[in-house]
Amino acid sequence: MSLHGSCRRVVGVARRSEVAQQALDMGIVDAASTDLRAVAEADIVVLATPVRHILATIPELAAVMRPGALLLDLGSTKSQVVAAMNALPVALAAVGGHPMCGKETGGLESADANLYRGATFVLMPTERTTDAAMLLAHEMVEAIGAVPLVMDAERHDRAVASVSHLPYLLAASLMHVGIEAEATDVATGRLAASGFRDTTRLAASSLDMMLDTLLTNREPLLAALDIFEEKIAQVRGLLDDPVGLKAWMAEAQCRRREMFR
Amino acid sequence: MSLHGSCRRVVGVARRSEVAQQALDMGIVDAASTDLRAVAEADIVVLATPVRHILATIPELAAVMRPGALLLDLGSTKSQVVAAMNALPVALAAVGGHPMCGKETGGLESADANLYRGATFVLMPTERTTDAAMLLAHEMVEAIGAVPLVMDAERHDRAVASVSHLPYLLAASLMHVGIEAEATDVATGRLAASGFRDTTRLAASSLDMMLDTLLTNREPLLAALDIFEEKIAQVRGLLDDPVGLKAWMAEAQCRRREMFR
Repeated sequence: MSLHGSCRRVVGVARRSEVAQQALDMGIVDAASTDLRAVAEADIVVLATPVRHILATIPELAAVMRPGALLLDLGSTKSQVVAAMNALPVALAAVGGHPMCGKETGGLESADANLYRGATFVLMPTERTTDAAMLLAHEMVEAIGAVPLVMDAERHDRAVASVSHLPYLLAASLMHVGIEAEATDVATGRLAASGFRDTTRLAASSLDMMLDTLLTNREPLLAALDIFEEKIAQVRGLLDDPVGLKAWMAEAQCRRREMFR
Repeated sequence: MSLHGSCRRVVGVARRSEVAQQALDMGIVDAASTDLRAVAEADIVVLATPVRHILATIPELAAVMRPGALLLDLGSTKSQVVAAMNALPVALAAVGGHPMCGKETGGLESADANLYRGATFVLMPTERTTDAAMLLAHEMVEAIGAVPLVMDAERHDRAVASVSHLPYLLAASLMHVGIEAEATDVATGRLAASGFRDTTRLAASSLDMMLDTLLTNREPLLAALDIFEEKIAQVRGLLDDPVGLKAWMAEAQCRRREMFR
């Protein structure tokens, strides 16, 4: 079944039995369980949970997966995941993965087979990555319509701190500004339009996923916050300089329009 | 013509003759000109340009508009606009206005008759606002499907600093972080997904409109930036406190989900 006919059989393992049942009911999997041992026969095991749960599960898989099988994870941060994969027995093959797509809603009801289409899917080599494993990971990525990009974990974690985790922190901090503004003037919320809606969208993200992401990428995130605060200090100083302010705004506008047409 | 049959005649005045011609060609207006005197016979004059241009135009209208006619503006900041309206001759009626909707694209090609539908439309009384003028302004707002909200200019400017101008500054500053990150690692842009796209959307806003908005709302904006930086300092301190961080994230998530369902 499924994955456009690319898989013979899909087995789902969930932490909660209701979710395992829901996946069966929705026809997403051929079999479902809450027991990790259900993947014992699998050729490919894909870990798609919050990062700290991925980190706890990787060592458990050492005793479960069959030799030669491929382990791929979809965690949002990669340095700690790659370190955990490096500690696996040499008989297992493991590749770190991160698809650059997502939603601010979670759960199987938000599942969307087209989510990956056209998205960059980062693949991280580990000490447990064989040539065959990397090739199979590429084939999986291509089967779901994503575009593979191979890079090391540190480089990935630094980049996503700027373009993914920092945006989340800004969205959540802006939401806190909104909460404080509403406490001062109850009408504030009625003035919030599509600009506030879009800039705060990430604040609605899944707590478990985002919490683990932030906690496992603290240093790159603090570095990205430092750079962000330099930019804020810069624009503060430009608020009484029309020429300098316009040039600063134009640079941001130009790159934004190039990136997203 | 137009405005769902609510107007007998619509006359457009543009700063550039190409735009006047474009409005005629698109059938948006019955007549078009670059000469402000074209509104001499109008019952209602609506100023819809960047704020500093509105401020320059209001005194010019004193010699053009017929006594008893209503002047309404759509500027993004209101304290300076209301002060300019207060200085008009007593024979003119004037109301400050701000529809809480917009796009990051400008020009007549982005015009959308449904843009105002369901949006909050703030109306500001001035020393030149008569009861009849406020009533007519309400009727106009309702004719385009918006929801009127009357408040004074200082309160409006403080609220929009938090929910509109601050989000713009965050979007543009985040774009500058992205530009710097790309200079360090050219692959960064390929990792930017829908989260970065939405959080930076406002950075693509019209320069002339946003520049005037920021320059005419400096003090409320600096105050909003102060509060925002307190929130950033708070979350920085929580990055090694899973319990405190999760509670902070949950508060933002909860309010975001309430505001935008």
